[in-house]
Amino acid sequence: MANGTDTKTIAIVGVGPGLGASLARRFAREGFAVALLARRAESLEPVSAELRQTGARVLALPTDGTQPAQVLSAFSRIKAELGAPDVLVYNAGNFFRGGILELTPQQFVQAWEANCLGAFLAAQQVLPDMVARKAGTILLTGATGSLRGGARFACLAVGKFGLRALGQSMAREFGPQGVHVAHVVVDGQIDNPRTQARYPEGRTADSYLSADAIADIYWDLHAQHPTTWTHELDLRPYGEKF
Amino acid sequence: MANGTDTKTIAIVGVGPGLGASLARRFAREGFAVALLARRAESLEPVSAELRQTGARVLALPTDGTQPAQVLSAFSRIKAELGAPDVLVYNAGNFFRGGILELTPQQFVQAWEANCLGAFLAAQQVLPDMVARKAGTILLTGATGSLRGGARFACLAVGKFGLRALGQSMAREFGPQGVHVAHVVVDGQIDNPRTQARYPEGRTADSYLSADAIADIYWDLHAQHPTTWTHELDLRPYGEKF
Amino acid sequence: MANGTDTKTIAIVGVGPGLGASLARRFAREGFAVALLARRAESLEPVSAELRQTGARVLALPTDGTQPAQVLSAFSRIKAELGAPDVLVYNAGNFFRGGILELTPQQFVQAWEANCLGAFLAAQQVLPDMVARKAGTILLTGATGSLRGGARFACLAVGKFGLRALGQSMAREFGPQGVHVAHVVVDGQIDNPRTQARYPEGRTADSYLSADAIADIYWDLHAQHPTTWTHELDLRPYGEKF
Amino acid sequence: MANGTDTKTIAIVGVGPGLGASLARRFAREGFAVALLARRAESLEPVSAELRQTGARVLALPTDGTQPAQVLSAFSRIKAELGAPDVLVYNAGNFFRGGILELTPQQFVQAWEANCLGAFLAAQQVLPDMVARKAGTILLTGATGSLRGGARFACLAVGKFGLRALGQSMAREFGPQGVHVAHVVVDGQIDNPRTQARYPEGRTADSYLSADAIADIYWDLHAQHPTTWTHELDLRPYGEKF
Repeated sequence: MANGTDTKTIAIVGVGPGLGASLARRFAREGFAVALLARRAESLEPVSAELRQTGARVLALPTDGTQPAQVLSAFSRIKAELGAPDVLVYNAGNFFRGGILELTPQQFVQAWEANCLGAFLAAQQVLPDMVARKAGTILLTGATGSLRGGARFACLAVGKFGLRALGQSMAREFGPQGVHVAHVVVDGQIDNPRTQARYPEGRTADSYLSADAIADIYWDLHAQHPTTWTHELDLRPYGEKF
Repeated sequence: MANGTDTKTIAIVGVGPGLGASLARRFAREGFAVALLARRAESLEPVSAELRQTGARVLALPTDGTQPAQVLSAFSRIKAELGAPDVLVYNAGNFFRGGILELTPQQFVQAWEANCLGAFLAAQQVLPDMVARKAGTILLTGATGSLRGGARFACLAVGKFGLRALGQSMAREFGPQGVHVAHVVVDGQIDNPRTQARYPEGRTADSYLSADAIADIYWDLHAQHPTTWTHELDLRPYGEKF
Repeated sequence: MANGTDTKTIAIVGVGPGLGASLARRFAREGFAVALLARRAESLEPVSAELRQTGARVLALPTDGTQPAQVLSAFSRIKAELGAPDVLVYNAGNFFRGGILELTPQQFVQAWEANCLGAFLAAQQVLPDMVARKAGTILLTGATGSLRGGARFACLAVGKFGLRALGQSMAREFGPQGVHVAHVVVDGQIDNPRTQARYPEGRTADSYLSADAIADIYWDLHAQHPTTWTHELDLRPYGEKF
Repeated sequence: MANGTDTKTIAIVGVGPGLGASLARRFAREGFAVALLARRAESLEPVSAELRQTGARVLALPTDGTQPAQVLSAFSRIKAELGAPDVLVYNAGNFFRGGILELTPQQFVQAWEANCLGAFLAAQQVLPDMVARKAGTILLTGATGSLRGGARFACLAVGKFGLRALGQSMAREFGPQGVHVAHVVVDGQIDNPRTQARYPEGRTADSYLSADAIADIYWDLHAQHPTTWTHELDLRPYGEKF
């Protein structure tokens, strides 16, 4: 570990006011140093300021997670400043909603890069150290679209199916080497101002997943005993249709 | 709740020295009164004696969980003596390994009854109170055979697929009424003297799931926030092929 | 083959005016002798009369397909009079629609027996000859409920999940022995007077699966080259939501 | 249709000596004009020469199916010379076998482009005419890796999961508009000189799928009645483990 400390480190790719921030708080509370990555600096600032006030070690790295050189550079800094990550969460992902004939090839590619390629790039950065230590956790944030390709959701489904495929391949390759890879199917809208505004129809407060509750579950996944690992689970509000 | 107390109650159907005992210990540690059901009294005695010594309220009820009258009788006693269960775990299940032409119709039926019918019977006993309180947890122990019908494993797969189907139907019917139903795919052998003797080939201690670790996860499932419920997850040792 | 002929034989369990009748016609047209089984004689009479007029060899056997002795007796007659079946179609299945607390244990058991146990009993009757000849086809009629346990559809899902589990186990056990086992997910209502009356809401003629078209596909499955077998496929009208 | 004829047209993307050639022969035999696309001209020449000798109308178009401009150009020629395709088969796909740490980002991207992006680009070319006619068939060639991400097979799985996601999204969007989209899971090695050389271990002639038999099934899928469409099926040799 860097700096002669035994602090553990988590790297979270894809951080905004919702799940990314809750994950950062949850792992910081356990004493983890926290590296936060998002494309835009303004996505990182509120949560990193908040965490620093609590005394947490935080590194905020504006990074386009789909660009190999930027990912390499960000993780080099993380390893140098916080130590090689013990936990990687890939929580990024954007997509364009629309029918097949409304999407451009660029949109189709970008959505896959954001949902899937970025996870591959980040995993390549953390796996060598995890394998060397025979320990590590990689958690991937999936969605309903990980399991079902809906009409007008091709962009999302292609990216999320790909992320799930990557997760399975990594779990099978690296599990026997001590690295826990899990894929979380978040089936519903996570509670935050943006989703409340965007998906109001017929919803009450209980209709949104609590970001803090999800972060607790990510923590539980990290803490699972190595003989008893989960590779996939779903999460949804009690009233959600599925 | 019976007896004017606010103690919570768990009923565990299918208790032996492995997962059933670990679940009993785990929930007793949280202050739950524990009802233990198994076909044979000798399966219940060691764990109920152990729990009573710790001061836990325990009711051990030898019951053939596939017989409606016996199930009704057992749950009537539980409700009267411990209070209506807040948590039901269906952990029973036996099957006959063999090819289609080696099995008798009786074996085929019995395996289904043990793996699936019993869960229906027990669920019918606990659901009315859970619905009335708008709260409750039903946890079903599945297996690799819940997702895959292997050669010579038809008996197991038919029962476990059925259990999973029942779990999905209950989750969709009762989730919106506040009852959390989850199905756990235990993909591997649980550590206990019997499995160690029966499945030794190529296995080390790490190749068996820890019953205590599984029990922790059942507890976590019960404790999940209602906006963030899991309906299915898998559990397996880090080195298990899947 | 019985009677010194080389006629092939199909046994269809579960015959009414819909898919069963279409299957009987389709295989009779290919020169098959046809054994028809259903609980009630009146279900068998119209189609057996119709087929006999076309010169087909037909054996109509009123049989409770969930009773081992009746199934044994029926298949003994089929083997003696038509020859050991080359093709078995299990097309039976009844269930009770209702919530978990509305169903009786008897209904829960009966639905499983009709959807799953009956297929096991019939398969046991035809598999020994199929294995001896290293050839044979077993086709199982599934439903949406084979893959998804809906609220108020527990009875159907438990039976159909079980049938699918049985099909997978048989496919894996008997495929290498030359017996083709396939499971067909019929996702929608099959066109016949009963379904048109029962499920009219928002449906046009195109909203129902054509029984004759399904029968063509069962024929195609039987005719598949042994290096290129299908074990599962879905069928639904072009406008059906899924 | 172009040229005042009523000939139907199939476009096959991904043509070599195996399944692509068999598909071309099968549809040509039904009177279809055949457009063949592959990256290298030498992949197209033997089969286009063979088909022309039988009198078939053939257009061989060396095309990098992952380049939007090339795909647009190829389909413009197909529409002008053969007519807008009634059937599109996406049969392309390459991947790099290797662990996550052995793959370059370029390889990871290229495999996805070949297995998934190319299908999106081709579908965009044929869908407007299919929607206008309310008829058309799009068939996607999947693999074991469409359903399971194996160790060292991340590249394949990410591409094939993505293709399946795209297929589901297109089926749900365009099915109600009369366009049949199906995904075929080819679970095994297709018989041709290359696979026989590459995957000999423990295999006999029967261990490889017959390319002609698969082509028959693609034809059957195209010919399915619109009330009875298959969206996914698997194909494997009778002795294949699964």
